[in-house]
Amino acid sequence: MSENFNAWLQSVQSAIEKSLSDLLPSEKQFPEPLHQAMRYAVLDGGKRIRPLLVFATGALFGAPVAVMTQTASAVEMIHAYSLIHDDMPCMDNDVLRRGKPTLHVQFGEAMALLAGDALQAQAFIVLSKIDDDAKLVAERLRILSEASGSLGMCGGQAIDLDSVGKNLSIDQLEQMHRLKTGALLKASVMLGAFSAKRPDPEEITALDAYAKAIGLAFQVVDDILDVTADTAILGKTAGKDASDHKPTYVSLLGLENAEKLAEKLRCQAHEAIEAFGKKAVYLHELADLVVYRKK
Amino acid sequence: MSENFNAWLQSVQSAIEKSLSDLLPSEKQFPEPLHQAMRYAVLDGGKRIRPLLVFATGALFGAPVAVMTQTASAVEMIHAYSLIHDDMPCMDNDVLRRGKPTLHVQFGEAMALLAGDALQAQAFIVLSKIDDDAKLVAERLRILSEASGSLGMCGGQAIDLDSVGKNLSIDQLEQMHRLKTGALLKASVMLGAFSAKRPDPEEITALDAYAKAIGLAFQVVDDILDVTADTAILGKTAGKDASDHKPTYVSLLGLENAEKLAEKLRCQAHEAIEAFGKKAVYLHELADLVVYRKK
Repeated sequence: MSENFNAWLQSVQSAIEKSLSDLLPSEKQFPEPLHQAMRYAVLDGGKRIRPLLVFATGALFGAPVAVMTQTASAVEMIHAYSLIHDDMPCMDNDVLRRGKPTLHVQFGEAMALLAGDALQAQAFIVLSKIDDDAKLVAERLRILSEASGSLGMCGGQAIDLDSVGKNLSIDQLEQMHRLKTGALLKASVMLGAFSAKRPDPEEITALDAYAKAIGLAFQVVDDILDVTADTAILGKTAGKDASDHKPTYVSLLGLENAEKLAEKLRCQAHEAIEAFGKKAVYLHELADLVVYRKK
Repeated sequence: MSENFNAWLQSVQSAIEKSLSDLLPSEKQFPEPLHQAMRYAVLDGGKRIRPLLVFATGALFGAPVAVMTQTASAVEMIHAYSLIHDDMPCMDNDVLRRGKPTLHVQFGEAMALLAGDALQAQAFIVLSKIDDDAKLVAERLRILSEASGSLGMCGGQAIDLDSVGKNLSIDQLEQMHRLKTGALLKASVMLGAFSAKRPDPEEITALDAYAKAIGLAFQVVDDILDVTADTAILGKTAGKDASDHKPTYVSLLGLENAEKLAEKLRCQAHEAIEAFGKKAVYLHELADLVVYRKK
């Protein structure tokens, strides 16, 4: 990781932290318990990979910082709501997230349900209120809602639900992850571009291939870390996939082949955006970050 | 109810049923169980009060039918998702809705959670894809997301959660319902107007007063019906508020005074829109329908 990239990473992360705090209702605003729960789930944690993708792609096209910041915050709210609902007892029943008790453990199940629901709405509130060309505003709302819905993230979670204890093929596993995590990662890249302008068709093709590669790489590495990393470092329960009998890239391919696949996808991501030249530096560095991360 | 109004009511209801069916992914589309659950929750049931409000207000301003239909469908999707989540065991734990088993009874809790989440996203997908002036599209997305979020419907549900077993004042009860059901009813009226154009300030004031009156009337009547109607007619469990120790207008005011309040609010609704003259005929009839309904 270059020094420049590291400085950029930290500056984006701190800008996003501030923006999320500004764009969520205050803990003192009525109804207070709901706003406390929303803020607990969103603030002070996470790698902010999706906002980083928005900023890296936005930078490539010279997007205004204010638009990127609000757009990236909206994506992160969708991500945070999905984690809240995913951790609930009727889903993954997990008790630890980002090193803290999960929301339903801390605030109760009903409040976790509502805080997730309200965060999804908040993401669209944020996008709808960005002061920008109305066509781009409407396009961004379409991109994020489609990525979140039944043919995107929620669809992937439904497939996941159905997959427990089953023998999935590699193709089926890929299809699940393409929706479950891939859709929102791809939306982050597209929203970065649409923070500046409607991209040209060849730009969309390149960004799409990049997003597809890092989306899948992200999941392969997640599966590897679930086996190789400690709970303390991950901030969530390690070894959970195996104990839940969930099919993973490691359970299907073995650890070594999963690592090879992650490396192959990393190379594909780099190749996909070659035509952008040096301007795409942050996207290149993010592809490495996704694959080489330790948590 | 006039014959004309009755015919209009049925034509809107059947247009909405068809539109909802068209705007939801097919049961045969992957992932099938999620789409089956979404359709189960939305289709073939409900009074469609919110779509009727969209159409009645839209008609007042000459809104295009296609825009009204899609906008009304989006509102109904938000309403349907809120019922799914509200019925879940961690919330109201209800087993009957629109005369059918609730979604989690039929499809399991995890699928109910996901179907609700996906329906919220679907509502915003639908709004974002309406072929219309982009400024109006963005405005409608803002109106619906704000009405759904923590300062609207979700906020009202959080207050409701906090109110069980407590002695609320009439003001506190009103504040809860203003958010829990009032916000989406008001949004329906506003979205009807914004299906045509951005209304003038005095038009907004009149519509706002109308929506506030019928929103509250709707809840007062709901509380009355919970006491006076049968489960078979309601299509949901009667007497549930009392058995759940929830504060209601009937428990706070008594049945007779609750009925007087409903009548007073009905009159306020009529007065609020007097300036629109005869063009507002459907809004007038809907105010009567909300108060005089038997289920």
